Amino acid sequence: MNNLSRRGLMSGVAAAGAAVALAPATTAKAAAPAAGKQAPGYYRHKVGDFEVTVVTDGKVVIPLPETYVANAKKDAVNEVIAANYLPTNSATHLYTPVVINTGSKLVVIDTGLGLGTFAQSKGAAGQFHTNLAASGIDPKSVDAVVISHFHGDHINGLLDADNKLAFPNAEIMVPAAEWKQWMDDSNMSKAAGTPVEGNYKNSRRVFGAFGNKVTQYDDGKELVGGIKAIATPGHTPGHMSYLVTSGPRSMIVQSDITAGMAFLFVKNPDWQLAFDMDKALAVQSRKKIYDMAIAEKIPVQGFHFPFPGLAYVEKDGNGYRLIPATWNPTL
Amino acid sequence: MNNLSRRGLMSGVAAAGAAVALAPATTAKAAAPAAGKQAPGYYRHKVGDFEVTVVTDGKVVIPLPETYVANAKKDAVNEVIAANYLPTNSATHLYTPVVINTGSKLVVIDTGLGLGTFAQSKGAAGQFHTNLAASGIDPKSVDAVVISHFHGDHINGLLDADNKLAFPNAEIMVPAAEWKQWMDDSNMSKAAGTPVEGNYKNSRRVFGAFGNKVTQYDDGKELVGGIKAIATPGHTPGHMSYLVTSGPRSMIVQSDITAGMAFLFVKNPDWQLAFDMDKALAVQSRKKIYDMAIAEKIPVQGFHFPFPGLAYVEKDGNGYRLIPATWNPTL
Repeated sequence: MNNLSRRGLMSGVAAAGAAVALAPATTAKAAAPAAGKQAPGYYRHKVGDFEVTVVTDGKVVIPLPETYVANAKKDAVNEVIAANYLPTNSATHLYTPVVINTGSKLVVIDTGLGLGTFAQSKGAAGQFHTNLAASGIDPKSVDAVVISHFHGDHINGLLDADNKLAFPNAEIMVPAAEWKQWMDDSNMSKAAGTPVEGNYKNSRRVFGAFGNKVTQYDDGKELVGGIKAIATPGHTPGHMSYLVTSGPRSMIVQSDITAGMAFLFVKNPDWQLAFDMDKALAVQSRKKIYDMAIAEKIPVQGFHFPFPGLAYVEKDGNGYRLIPATWNPTL
Repeated sequence: MNNLSRRGLMSGVAAAGAAVALAPATTAKAAAPAAGKQAPGYYRHKVGDFEVTVVTDGKVVIPLPETYVANAKKDAVNEVIAANYLPTNSATHLYTPVVINTGSKLVVIDTGLGLGTFAQSKGAAGQFHTNLAASGIDPKSVDAVVISHFHGDHINGLLDADNKLAFPNAEIMVPAAEWKQWMDDSNMSKAAGTPVEGNYKNSRRVFGAFGNKVTQYDDGKELVGGIKAIATPGHTPGHMSYLVTSGPRSMIVQSDITAGMAFLFVKNPDWQLAFDMDKALAVQSRKKIYDMAIAEKIPVQGFHFPFPGLAYVEKDGNGYRLIPATWNPTL
């Protein structure tokens, strides 16, 4: 059992160049090699008759910016990070798109950081397409891709590694208000030299790659039978969440109601993420969605929640607490 | 977009026996078929240099017994079940063995409900071997199987579907106190006609299938370099947990410190699970392990936690609360 001393003995014997044959062969056997890689990141659950496949796109860890939360000190932010047993002074960002098979349509909601040159971290993120393949879903069979807003972690995965449309047979559905915001030339001119300028350019890059062929939608639109858009502006002007309903069961796909490190804003819903564009409106949309989830006792699927990203919401003091849905080993 | 009315239209057209060819072929296309099955249930994480593969054995749901908790009313139990968004009046049991590759040994800790006639629920449970195969681990390469105690959900998976030893090259390590309890004929005689009689018989069935060739161990034993037994009696007389240490990192493999629906006893550590054999001692062992996890800020891997079963522990009033470790999409 004392493996270390046994190994020491063995190497000593070998070094002496003698008597190696006396050691039983099994003693020298190393363990099977470590696998060295994570399991494919997909998970299935049902909402009524709908089959949901949650697919992780991976993670990106960056140094924690000083002003990650516009209205909280870095120390207070680090305290909540530590309470979640994640590395302090780092922002750990997780990306969790979903695919919904309604029985008549196969629908992707948001697409991750993509595979091309704009993937922020090769391997660690941009895993959506790999994990989608592992789940057995063929991108060619996707009928619709619904985009919640035009940040790169939601739209870049529309393109494959060759910058072609990754879902060649899908209708691409985008919020009309997002299209208006990001594809408008005068808005882009005004943003010249600011940090958001890149987002205007990236939106043009992505949608331009397939000739801007999108269907625009507004608040309240039933995009596919059972999947309805709910305007939740603030994070971006046209940001959308979704109510997914099949029979008596529902869930909310929250998109970026709590973004970045979502747990910070679950616990402190009044905290303002630095890159929420209209911060007060983002807080309002956040509370609207979580209060709805609590009132209706329906789970929330969160794009920036840790995989598999499905949780119930409860009030907790001035904020909220997530109760992760119990992993179901069967479907 | 209005899929339902479009479908209504289509079927109306077809019923009229006319003009079907006028409808574009794509309109009638059904979605890709649902996958209909869950993702393979394994997950990897590191403890220092050790690679841990958590492998779900599945779940078994039974009607909630009146006396599931010996010292709490069924209503109080149902209240905690509801707070965890699981079906009330049911006991949802989840099984989560682990495999640890220390770099020099490949070690399985506990084995699930097995594949043979004693698997309690074909398909839903007894998935350990299937998911192990999915994870790429060959049972022939397992060097040691460590058993925490002799309940069927921990030992039955020692055997394959033909009731042969499923890990043909492994040393089988069992708590000496468990061997003494369950393999003793006078103990079995005294249990005749009681609910635990079956456990004596099952222990003989399982270990007898490979000629009772086991290595017995006691409290404090380092079973394999970095994996040390901690006696945590109560659930059964020889019940063991483990401290796993590699470099500066550790975790506790708790086994059945909280068993059945573990969350009940995490929240209410003084509650006594009906099938804890020495109930007061089980409570004592439970608090010892969780207080140790809190003091050392190390995660706990729980056999009856929902997959992937890795969580940090915090005090919460008179009980504890689990903070699930954040799913890592990379290794």
